[in-house]
Amino acid sequence: MTDYSHVLVVSGGMDSATLAHLTKHHHGNPYLITFDYGQRHKKEIEYAQLLAENIKAPHKVIDISGINSVLGGSALTDNSIEVPEGHYEEETMAATVVPNRNAIMLTIAYALAVSLNIPKVGCAMHAGDHAIYPDCRPEFVQRFDFMQKCAVEGHGNPDLSLWTPFINKTKADIAKIGLSLGIDYSQTWSCYKGEEKHCGKCGTCVERKEAFFLIRKKDPTDYNLPDLLTV
Amino acid sequence: MTDYSHVLVVSGGMDSATLAHLTKHHHGNPYLITFDYGQRHKKEIEYAQLLAENIKAPHKVIDISGINSVLGGSALTDNSIEVPEGHYEEETMAATVVPNRNAIMLTIAYALAVSLNIPKVGCAMHAGDHAIYPDCRPEFVQRFDFMQKCAVEGHGNPDLSLWTPFINKTKADIAKIGLSLGIDYSQTWSCYKGEEKHCGKCGTCVERKEAFFLIRKKDPTDYNLPDLLTV
Repeated sequence: MTDYSHVLVVSGGMDSATLAHLTKHHHGNPYLITFDYGQRHKKEIEYAQLLAENIKAPHKVIDISGINSVLGGSALTDNSIEVPEGHYEEETMAATVVPNRNAIMLTIAYALAVSLNIPKVGCAMHAGDHAIYPDCRPEFVQRFDFMQKCAVEGHGNPDLSLWTPFINKTKADIAKIGLSLGIDYSQTWSCYKGEEKHCGKCGTCVERKEAFFLIRKKDPTDYNLPDLLTV
Repeated sequence: MTDYSHVLVVSGGMDSATLAHLTKHHHGNPYLITFDYGQRHKKEIEYAQLLAENIKAPHKVIDISGINSVLGGSALTDNSIEVPEGHYEEETMAATVVPNRNAIMLTIAYALAVSLNIPKVGCAMHAGDHAIYPDCRPEFVQRFDFMQKCAVEGHGNPDLSLWTPFINKTKADIAKIGLSLGIDYSQTWSCYKGEEKHCGKCGTCVERKEAFFLIRKKDPTDYNLPDLLTV
């Protein structure tokens, strides 16, 4: 038995930070996990560690980079493929899809939840996670939860289920929730490139800027590219 | 595009060997994968390699041992827990359950199938995989397939689905199929202990002996323990 309410799959980004703070404020004590799947840069992992320190939660980095041998062809793990620039919704962003990534990460999160008897697995996919990520849709969440109820029946917490509070929220909605919780988003990392500052040009940087713009709040991010969208 | 018909998740055991030979004989060219999840011995992996050589199939060993940090408490990965002896159906065999193992391995197999545009993922779970393994039941297979159809929609082969031909077959049925295909089962490994010979006492050794006994065929396995069940 443990005192944790949720296993949360987190990166170091805005959505993950909001999920973790939301859990801590309103639902219980989260247990954070981050996957090292051979990302071309480790900033995502460093910022996830910072998030865990900020909310005083345990955090494990789970190395699944051995899976890379089967994943070939994503710009997120393969240094020979260039990270596409521009808006998320563009065709080119398909290069950032690691096949089946959410299902892989969530099955491992469930293994931990069973081991520790934790009743919820949480993940921060949201409505802005575009049609090119089929494993970010509400249908996926429903089917995954249904599959898991069968897969671990009789093991772990009998109430174990998947929690995705942002599944129908936009990135702007999430930023609004996070600011109401007092989150300092300068302590989060979104950029797909691993440079010193956010590049300001890749799909996730563009999406990040847009979120603050839409809610008319100052974006605390330090970008390489002078801001095109500012409040 | 590839010429492979199936991604098969294999260990070095009888069921996996039968699945791989069955595929090769009747359905197409399999692509074999085996998971290194930190098994206490590597015989399972060595025998999987031998299987791949025997049927001239590509074979990848995927290292997911980093997941061990979340799996604690299984006799299959934790050397401090003793492997239980006796019949599979006994309570004690629960110690051999790695939580959510099939779901984890199959999601990774799907990632490979998507990457290589292979239309089937195959796995050798069977009717003898007892109630203590909820992720070996027909309901699990159905729900998993339904989840995956959503998770990878628009990616990989549009017909991608899960194939579990032994789901309603016993170990004895499988042995009969394999012998009809000419499989030399002395080139497979079942025992949970990693000694020179099969121990003859652990759950999977007892199940192996029983399969040959039930179909009245000679068990080609070299056991440490003199056979109690022989034809």
